[in-house]
Amino acid sequence: MSATKKTTIGLHVLARLKEVGIDTVFGVPGDYNLKFLDLLDDDKDLTWGNNANELNASYAADGYARVKGAGALLTTFGVGELSATNGIAGSYAEMIPVIHLVGTPSTTSIAQGAVLHHSLGNGDFSVFVNMFSQITAASAHLTPNNAARQIDFVISESLRRRRPGYIGIPSDIVNTEITVDAGKLDYSIPRNPQDTQEAALKDIIRAIQQAKNPIILADACVLRNNMKKELAELVKVSGFPVYVAPMSIDVVDHGLPSYRGCYSGSSSLDQVKKEVLSADLILELGSEQTDVNTGGFTYGLDTSKIIEFHTFATKVFYSTYEKVSMQELLPLVIKHFPSSAKIDPASIERSLGPRARRADTPPGEVIVQDYFWNKMTEYFPERSIIVTETGTANLGAFNVDLPKDCIFISQLLWGSIGYTVPATLGAAVADRSRRTFLVVGDGSFQLTVQEISSMLHHGVCPIILLFNNDGYLIEKLIHGRDRKYNDIQMWEYAESFKYFGKDIKVNHQRATHPFQVGVHAKLESRKDFEKAMDQAMAQPDHIHFLELILPPFDAPQEALKQIASYDG
Amino acid sequence: MSATKKTTIGLHVLARLKEVGIDTVFGVPGDYNLKFLDLLDDDKDLTWGNNANELNASYAADGYARVKGAGALLTTFGVGELSATNGIAGSYAEMIPVIHLVGTPSTTSIAQGAVLHHSLGNGDFSVFVNMFSQITAASAHLTPNNAARQIDFVISESLRRRRPGYIGIPSDIVNTEITVDAGKLDYSIPRNPQDTQEAALKDIIRAIQQAKNPIILADACVLRNNMKKELAELVKVSGFPVYVAPMSIDVVDHGLPSYRGCYSGSSSLDQVKKEVLSADLILELGSEQTDVNTGGFTYGLDTSKIIEFHTFATKVFYSTYEKVSMQELLPLVIKHFPSSAKIDPASIERSLGPRARRADTPPGEVIVQDYFWNKMTEYFPERSIIVTETGTANLGAFNVDLPKDCIFISQLLWGSIGYTVPATLGAAVADRSRRTFLVVGDGSFQLTVQEISSMLHHGVCPIILLFNNDGYLIEKLIHGRDRKYNDIQMWEYAESFKYFGKDIKVNHQRATHPFQVGVHAKLESRKDFEKAMDQAMAQPDHIHFLELILPPFDAPQEALKQIASYDG
Repeated sequence: MSATKKTTIGLHVLARLKEVGIDTVFGVPGDYNLKFLDLLDDDKDLTWGNNANELNASYAADGYARVKGAGALLTTFGVGELSATNGIAGSYAEMIPVIHLVGTPSTTSIAQGAVLHHSLGNGDFSVFVNMFSQITAASAHLTPNNAARQIDFVISESLRRRRPGYIGIPSDIVNTEITVDAGKLDYSIPRNPQDTQEAALKDIIRAIQQAKNPIILADACVLRNNMKKELAELVKVSGFPVYVAPMSIDVVDHGLPSYRGCYSGSSSLDQVKKEVLSADLILELGSEQTDVNTGGFTYGLDTSKIIEFHTFATKVFYSTYEKVSMQELLPLVIKHFPSSAKIDPASIERSLGPRARRADTPPGEVIVQDYFWNKMTEYFPERSIIVTETGTANLGAFNVDLPKDCIFISQLLWGSIGYTVPATLGAAVADRSRRTFLVVGDGSFQLTVQEISSMLHHGVCPIILLFNNDGYLIEKLIHGRDRKYNDIQMWEYAESFKYFGKDIKVNHQRATHPFQVGVHAKLESRKDFEKAMDQAMAQPDHIHFLELILPPFDAPQEALKQIASYDG
Repeated sequence: MSATKKTTIGLHVLARLKEVGIDTVFGVPGDYNLKFLDLLDDDKDLTWGNNANELNASYAADGYARVKGAGALLTTFGVGELSATNGIAGSYAEMIPVIHLVGTPSTTSIAQGAVLHHSLGNGDFSVFVNMFSQITAASAHLTPNNAARQIDFVISESLRRRRPGYIGIPSDIVNTEITVDAGKLDYSIPRNPQDTQEAALKDIIRAIQQAKNPIILADACVLRNNMKKELAELVKVSGFPVYVAPMSIDVVDHGLPSYRGCYSGSSSLDQVKKEVLSADLILELGSEQTDVNTGGFTYGLDTSKIIEFHTFATKVFYSTYEKVSMQELLPLVIKHFPSSAKIDPASIERSLGPRARRADTPPGEVIVQDYFWNKMTEYFPERSIIVTETGTANLGAFNVDLPKDCIFISQLLWGSIGYTVPATLGAAVADRSRRTFLVVGDGSFQLTVQEISSMLHHGVCPIILLFNNDGYLIEKLIHGRDRKYNDIQMWEYAESFKYFGKDIKVNHQRATHPFQVGVHAKLESRKDFEKAMDQAMAQPDHIHFLELILPPFDAPQEALKQIASYDG
């Protein structure tokens, strides 16, 4: 029997959050969560997110989790929690562990079925937790009896399965004393079945030994399983040419001689496509074959050449090895890698030619997205966090060259427009030592604009790059090019700091520098853009807003290819 | 068998919406709803809402429905629809029929379980409709086979039960031909059981004949059942003193000699409470006994004196008459009203004294909420729409005197902060011939601020009155008066039109006048406020924004009473 200790329900929740690395809880106050907020406010190791609404808070927690490994938000019953459903479902789809804490009515009111505000008025207090049970790995509505067990269960399941978790905390039991497990939370995954794993490993090693043109294709689940290090080791030990997917462009160091680009089916650069299709063995790591990630299901790869490493299974050509997870298997492949199969990375360029890159942009004055991405690679420093919004803004980033140790954040599967403004706040709060860049279209920006206010409140210093192309461009390219419904109201975007920041109340107990507003300007030419970027890059302790005026239908090459394969 | 006709799925949905009085569909475009939007765009009798996000669209549809009788919004699969859950649940709680149309992936993709963007990536396309089934009266995901039946079923159930409905429309069947019922939609409620009704009626008439101090207490479900006219008739035929509840302050003409004020338990004005408690018979119509509507469950009325008229039952003292709805019963009570029991309205003031009113405000310079509400009664014209936000902003309105035929909109049960900014848009679009007033606190305003942009887009002309008291005042009064978590970022509220309206693209095909921006100012004194209001009232074809600077802890008397009874 493990050791136990006495604590309270609220304090145990906070202790477990801190244990998994969380130091900021996003959310909005509401009258059923104020007592829990007292505990958070009193805890010197925790910061309150102070978001403008709950959807934004859920996006911020997701962005934060992509940098720190886990995130959390706190909402109030009904009116608060339901506003976060889209964000939580997004974290579910994209496999991001976000703990959603909800302050609920007192156990007495629940027992009475009282007709309380923020309820449906029918005495049923289980409707919302039931809704969330469909988009979380685990969910619980606490009672004094189940709290110790359920808090640990929901948080560990969320971390283990990398999906959101939901914990409802009745307002009257926040300070109720409970006895909890004094040990660390265990969220390890089960061991692989050893015989099955051994058989898979043998097949894999044999395939590697027989391959003539082997490659590695590393995708999102390498990131989700926190296996960048193991991938780097495999790349090193094998010397195989390595490709990434749109969902994982940051999974490998682009400076390596074996790095060859981003594969996304027919949306790929021509040369990348040619190279991948001519491989005779593909070590496909953590593949997420969604429409956007595969150029609209145009992978065109031959199963007889693919070894798939997944989170819950491994597939060698046509044979599936159930429950053999890449987390345990990949280190074994590295350990047993046949030295005879190793490729000299220096030879790759000789045999395949120089790595494919985005085409140069024709000279000109006007800012266009192809120019933008080519130019930005000159600005991104090592360790950048780059957040790109759904639409043309993230499609253009597929083939961008990143410096070392960047974190690239985008919702390629869930694709909820508006996600990135709060996600940028979350990511920037999660690691203030990195420079953060947000690339967002005007249409998306409008959905969640309030978090500019929260950025000022927290004193974070992203460079916000807004594409002003006067409407929902990605929709116009898909359908309804000249339809009114794809138009939006024109805002004074470049005045955002002024509107949202009257008296900047910076809450940057964690900030390392005095906070100021830097560049905030509307930019119509490349010359002005570059001047503004030079200034913004020179002021890492300022927040910047660059509104770029683009031609209304300008789109990057990647977007045009993607849309050609779109089946809407 | 009824006559049928051929049409398409999309056109049938639009025809049914128009049939129930809807001329504007709120929402946000997304790639699974664009083909449906084409139909809407091509229909000269329908306007597209063009909201900035889906939560806002759902609130706008709710506000619209409170004026027009029914509302609609259109979102896209997953990322769009889930953002609207809070708004839809609010419409469910508050009994507002809002039809939620969702553009979903093609039937082919659904059949294949394709890993599409905006899905959870697990091939399950039923998760979201399942979630919505818990907060709607009826929900359906259309197929060519079920469409004709399900469209009619969801819309009629929604109207009949006055709850939201959900219709998912796969993108590839929008233009599929179907055969539909050519008749009008039937959403009448079932007849009451006649014997039971007769017994109830007999008991009621007898009780009325025996009463010495009978009163009428009219609540929210009179409005929800669209029975203002019947109530007016009952008031006229009986002459009984009539009281309203906070959820229904607009249910009766305040100018009638028999109107006596708003009853909300211990939150009531003292004299109103005394009068109601001294009645020996209470005809309680459409009562919604929620915490906020009853002064925190402090009604203190004696069941042996109450006849409850409900939507699905009638209760005479301790006896319940199941399935006897007020909709059929109330006209019978009016018809059979015993003339001997009639009270002369002119006698009421003689016996009870002058009607209770809010206390006069002490003179002063500073704007305080008690002053505000007393003053506003001088400004509200007949037929005003008055929208008040959850918090101190709606609590202060309980005892306000309204002129004839006003519509009062507030979420007293659901209480989702941020609701009113989009709801004001919806209400103003629903009836451009009425003057619309929004009273909203700064904390709430921040959640849904984007709809200021939509107001400019639609060219509607509300007078927006923002209480700037630097934080979530209602929360501070409940708990955590000086806690940081109840603070918010200070914005330049009075500059909203400038920020959100750069190039005003007015889409007011229904507007009756040229649209302009009127007053937009920050006001710190009563003198300045009155000057600004005078100007705003003189410009009904302009939109106005009055930011009122209030002392941080100023609250109206009603709020202080309400909070005293609050059990958080």
